[in-house]
Amino acid sequence: MHIAGSKHDTIAAIATPPGSGGVGIVRASGPDALSIAQRLFSSTRQNFGGLKPYRLHHGWIDDEGGQRLDEALVAYMPGPGSYTGEDVVEFNCHGGPAVLRAVLEAVLKAGARTASPGEFTYRAFMNGRLDLTQAEAVAETIAAPTRAGLTLAQAKLSGALGKRITQLRDQLEELRVKLCVAVDFPEDEVECLSPDEFLEGIGTVREGLRTLLGSFERNRCWRDGALTVLAGQVNAGKSSLMNALLGRERAIVTDIPGTTRDYLEEALNLEGLPVRLVDTAGLRETEDAVERAGLERSRDLTTQADLVLLVVDRHRTLSADDVALAQNTGPENTLVVLNKTDLSAPPHSKESPAQETDWFAKAGYETVGISAKTGQGLDALCQRIRERIVGGGAEPDAGEVVPNLRQSQALSGALVELEALETDIQQGLPYDLLGVRLETACSMLSEITGDIAPAGVLEAVFGRFCIGK
Amino acid sequence: MHIAGSKHDTIAAIATPPGSGGVGIVRASGPDALSIAQRLFSSTRQNFGGLKPYRLHHGWIDDEGGQRLDEALVAYMPGPGSYTGEDVVEFNCHGGPAVLRAVLEAVLKAGARTASPGEFTYRAFMNGRLDLTQAEAVAETIAAPTRAGLTLAQAKLSGALGKRITQLRDQLEELRVKLCVAVDFPEDEVECLSPDEFLEGIGTVREGLRTLLGSFERNRCWRDGALTVLAGQVNAGKSSLMNALLGRERAIVTDIPGTTRDYLEEALNLEGLPVRLVDTAGLRETEDAVERAGLERSRDLTTQADLVLLVVDRHRTLSADDVALAQNTGPENTLVVLNKTDLSAPPHSKESPAQETDWFAKAGYETVGISAKTGQGLDALCQRIRERIVGGGAEPDAGEVVPNLRQSQALSGALVELEALETDIQQGLPYDLLGVRLETACSMLSEITGDIAPAGVLEAVFGRFCIGK
Repeated sequence: MHIAGSKHDTIAAIATPPGSGGVGIVRASGPDALSIAQRLFSSTRQNFGGLKPYRLHHGWIDDEGGQRLDEALVAYMPGPGSYTGEDVVEFNCHGGPAVLRAVLEAVLKAGARTASPGEFTYRAFMNGRLDLTQAEAVAETIAAPTRAGLTLAQAKLSGALGKRITQLRDQLEELRVKLCVAVDFPEDEVECLSPDEFLEGIGTVREGLRTLLGSFERNRCWRDGALTVLAGQVNAGKSSLMNALLGRERAIVTDIPGTTRDYLEEALNLEGLPVRLVDTAGLRETEDAVERAGLERSRDLTTQADLVLLVVDRHRTLSADDVALAQNTGPENTLVVLNKTDLSAPPHSKESPAQETDWFAKAGYETVGISAKTGQGLDALCQRIRERIVGGGAEPDAGEVVPNLRQSQALSGALVELEALETDIQQGLPYDLLGVRLETACSMLSEITGDIAPAGVLEAVFGRFCIGK
Repeated sequence: MHIAGSKHDTIAAIATPPGSGGVGIVRASGPDALSIAQRLFSSTRQNFGGLKPYRLHHGWIDDEGGQRLDEALVAYMPGPGSYTGEDVVEFNCHGGPAVLRAVLEAVLKAGARTASPGEFTYRAFMNGRLDLTQAEAVAETIAAPTRAGLTLAQAKLSGALGKRITQLRDQLEELRVKLCVAVDFPEDEVECLSPDEFLEGIGTVREGLRTLLGSFERNRCWRDGALTVLAGQVNAGKSSLMNALLGRERAIVTDIPGTTRDYLEEALNLEGLPVRLVDTAGLRETEDAVERAGLERSRDLTTQADLVLLVVDRHRTLSADDVALAQNTGPENTLVVLNKTDLSAPPHSKESPAQETDWFAKAGYETVGISAKTGQGLDALCQRIRERIVGGGAEPDAGEVVPNLRQSQALSGALVELEALETDIQQGLPYDLLGVRLETACSMLSEITGDIAPAGVLEAVFGRFCIGK
């Protein structure tokens, strides 16, 4: 998006998801939105009195050559009482790709230009309709993988995070004012701002930041999904397990070792917990370059995973490779899945545990027996996956305010400054050296709400949006 | 869809295409639509006076447990002045899958049931808001592959086809009345309806039907897309040509013969003409069962194709297989593409045509030289594909009324009856034997507009719709 110089023209885009559906919307925002609508729209009413604000008007959309494009409902929302704060017009058309493209083209020909991704929301932000945390909450609402993720986004849509940040920053600003006075009148320094009062003020804000950061870490899986990686030897049944978990044939399952050459990612919803389930290439020595690249990606993924499901064929002797895989991630991050319980049990399985179970138990690994083929044990496995990732944890509270990655990075930055500042105060550094850290912490908080918003930050935020929002 | 007994409840569905976008709509229709909206919606206005008809209201959607789901614009359209003719409520939400699912679930919990595909439009039809041709035009508008297809659908959306059919049927009904009188008063038979008058009346309607059927055949490619099949030997460059035409890497191109084991279909837009471009498995003897199944499908497709692009490597000797492929489809339906013009020319190519060109020219096949690799000759090829399929034909007229397959089948059925009736009259069959054919023709026309609509016809029509329309 070209952030600069794009404020005074009229932008337009298809606002609904791509593809076919019952209804699709073409949206225009800017000074010419109304006149464009007036030129393209003709009402079905005999005594049509013009496009009235916030009303749905039924009629036809024709291009400027008079060619009929669609039957539509048209709504005009005058600025500043609109999403963007500018004049907005929405054309509710039939939801087909060709018809929406045709209507959008007519709108563009009539004087609008194509909106960049997120440009409607960018204008809303620039016009003060929402702060940057609310703008991000819009994108997070749309991207929410499950109801729990939605709850987290909604809490921020109303501006709760922005308000909390502003509160903390205001407390810092108050300290800054006192610090300035103390520096200007060194004789009254202690009276203006005693080190204890300074430390206490900083401490309150620091705790506020830590609470928000804790909430970020605690809710990461609810928001972004828990990365769960299927690992294990070739033909242990990883792809079959993935299909069984998804309840459908996503991975190509064959008896040929090495069928899964790259990794497959699918979304799974475990009672509200979004899980990114990844099936990796089976680990084996290979001469195939494509397969080898897949293997390396598998290894990277297991190190990033919230949980590794190590799939072991319980009818094969435990190999050095299995042990190496298990030790690579360790007992905390591994759940060992003993597959193929449907086949006749290995010798002594009832009385004495099989060799595998034995080794894993001794080394402190949790094991679950399943049959990917018959579905036996799958419910218990899902339960264990969920508990291993979020503990007994219920879904996040409706009111809980959880920063996203960008916001938490800025929070961490501010936190580091404040912690250093506390040390500086305790070590008795002169007050005139302390202003810089305080100012840096303030700006970092201002970046979160967008009160200070470098172009790079805005581009990163709005670049994540879809077109039409 | 359960056609019967579904009229008095409230239905709901996500009306926008699946996936992520800026805006998504959840729609409800039926007697409880308004009360459901009142329970879930709370306005952002301080002095909110209730949901007013045809207005956009800004506010929040909460589920009945009080959990916030989304910020939304809500519109209430009371019946009969709505799409379905019933009370309709639309929730314009953020366009994310989880948020739309959450809002839909809240609407369902509040008393609606999930709408079947096409059920909104079915209700519109049952409530007399549109005839069956208009209902079908809704589906055709959404499915229109290009602007030309859209033009055809739009002409019917306003009811033009329904009106034309009703006109023709009324003419037949008039003849039926006269025929009845003539049968009842045989002494005045000639006065009531002379054979000449009868024949003239039937002839007028017959011509009307033929005109519509001609329009169906003439515009088939504009509406459904022209099936264009890439055929040719292994490694002649079919997949490369497909990619070159699409301008992107759709098919996996490798140097390994037989890479394309099944067929790939992609949509191409040749200056408004929708083309269904199909890349087939290369023709060669194979032991691979998957590949062999692909080959059989390829052969089926070439026989159905509007145009077969026979791709030949101009640097290889013309083989018996190439000749067999060409003869299989014949010169009318084949365009021979001599690929790899970028490679150094075969001997004597400038002075005397190459062996291939020579054979094809003699046998009456049109040839075009291209390089899929460099793009040389592709524009000319596209031009020839378009001309071979629709001649010099411009796009269909905005006003042209073109029946769809179902409609044209009913038209053909009526036409057959009328032609048989003409023969009967000419052969002097007694009038009391002629009523049945006339009645059959009338019912067939009534089926088109839905004035007579057997459940099977309705299920077929509305079963084609997407959910939410």
